[in-house]
Amino acid sequence: MHTHVTMIDMVKDLGGNKRTIKFTIEYDGSDFSGWQIQPNRRTVQGEIKHALKCLIDEDVVVTGAGRTDAGVHALGQVASIRTDQRLPLSAFKNGLNAYLPEDVRIVDVEEAPQSFDARRDAQRRVYRYVLCRQARVLGRQYAWHPNFSFSLEPMKQASECLVGRHDFTSFCKKNGDIHDYHSHVMRVDWDVIGDEIHFSITATHFFHNMVRIIVGSLLDVGRGRITPDVFYQILEEKDRRRAGPTAPPHGLVLVRVEY
Amino acid sequence: MHTHVTMIDMVKDLGGNKRTIKFTIEYDGSDFSGWQIQPNRRTVQGEIKHALKCLIDEDVVVTGAGRTDAGVHALGQVASIRTDQRLPLSAFKNGLNAYLPEDVRIVDVEEAPQSFDARRDAQRRVYRYVLCRQARVLGRQYAWHPNFSFSLEPMKQASECLVGRHDFTSFCKKNGDIHDYHSHVMRVDWDVIGDEIHFSITATHFFHNMVRIIVGSLLDVGRGRITPDVFYQILEEKDRRRAGPTAPPHGLVLVRVEY
Repeated sequence: MHTHVTMIDMVKDLGGNKRTIKFTIEYDGSDFSGWQIQPNRRTVQGEIKHALKCLIDEDVVVTGAGRTDAGVHALGQVASIRTDQRLPLSAFKNGLNAYLPEDVRIVDVEEAPQSFDARRDAQRRVYRYVLCRQARVLGRQYAWHPNFSFSLEPMKQASECLVGRHDFTSFCKKNGDIHDYHSHVMRVDWDVIGDEIHFSITATHFFHNMVRIIVGSLLDVGRGRITPDVFYQILEEKDRRRAGPTAPPHGLVLVRVEY
Repeated sequence: MHTHVTMIDMVKDLGGNKRTIKFTIEYDGSDFSGWQIQPNRRTVQGEIKHALKCLIDEDVVVTGAGRTDAGVHALGQVASIRTDQRLPLSAFKNGLNAYLPEDVRIVDVEEAPQSFDARRDAQRRVYRYVLCRQARVLGRQYAWHPNFSFSLEPMKQASECLVGRHDFTSFCKKNGDIHDYHSHVMRVDWDVIGDEIHFSITATHFFHNMVRIIVGSLLDVGRGRITPDVFYQILEEKDRRRAGPTAPPHGLVLVRVEY
């Protein structure tokens, strides 16, 4: 009997007949203090949690795939929740969008396996950093205009060494909870669209400020402060102090998360 | 003697040795109550006047080519001022940009003939209205997503009748000061860029809400409420009540002013 009760408890802990729902979310990071809930701050996770409370009257845990910083945007952030609520998926989508402010939108809602966790199960994330050559007012929230000139070719060349499995200690802000800064970069891509330069990077893990420090360091290459070889040495040296400045957040967008 | 004094006064009235400066201005209309100065409102004209006061300590009259409404953007608004100030043009540009907020920027500064008036001397203005087929969060300030589907071909067909000299009474909001609603439309252009549809219109004059009412009425064509022939009849009837709704301001941008 004792064993039986324990098993029921275990099933309950696993969520019993709770369902797991996967959301794909677009947001404009300009007016947010980032993804993660913080007291007295406007956060994306907080807005979604609040909209869920309004819609289904449950205090759910909203698990996001990537903790984007203040000012960073998302076209395809992914989050998961577990709920008893039996609403159809379309009602989740339309209902949440009705409660969400105009700078956050649920793009897609899917039923997920009960054990699905948006953060833990993410295999790859794709981030894009947008630079622009001309200063601009319209769209200034979505691209960074460095106030110096730079050459793209050496930046492309330097970025190739990022592909593969590396320790990215040099290119991230230390976080006390993390002791392993290894990530596998699957690819880096460069696209020139009008006066915009799009740098896209696909990897298993992204640590705090990683893309922004990589972009800041690549611009040190682009403006001739360091050579592509030195950029590679910096990666090897595993020392944040050797890398370049952190590029501003508004050029960065979380494009998608792959499972 | 009397005549002589009067002539000196006349020269003084004309500005004496004042110079006339022409500014080209880009702005994001999202957080402005439009171009024109209004008490207790944030306006583009007000910001520029304030920046000029800071830079040259003069209360100048800032004459704009087009009075854009709240929420309407500009890539190439033109304004003129008359001043005694001998600053070099580059100092006007950089100095004003240092005082202006990030949603207004002086793109170009030129010396103009003393009699130049940005409003009176404008020959043609080019406006663009941006529609998008998909709802979006990033860039939502710069394109209107109608919440209905529409076909582009009949809209293109209907828009052709706008070219030429017409009385646009049907397609503008009446203004007590204006009694002649004639304008010569030089051209209309359509461009499809990804999920965006750009409608551009070049004309001698634009009356209040003219592009927005034209776009609202063209969408009545696009969604099948009226035919292109009826659109033309509406233009002919010179009756605002016959035209469609006013499209929202944020899809509209003043692209340039030609002299």
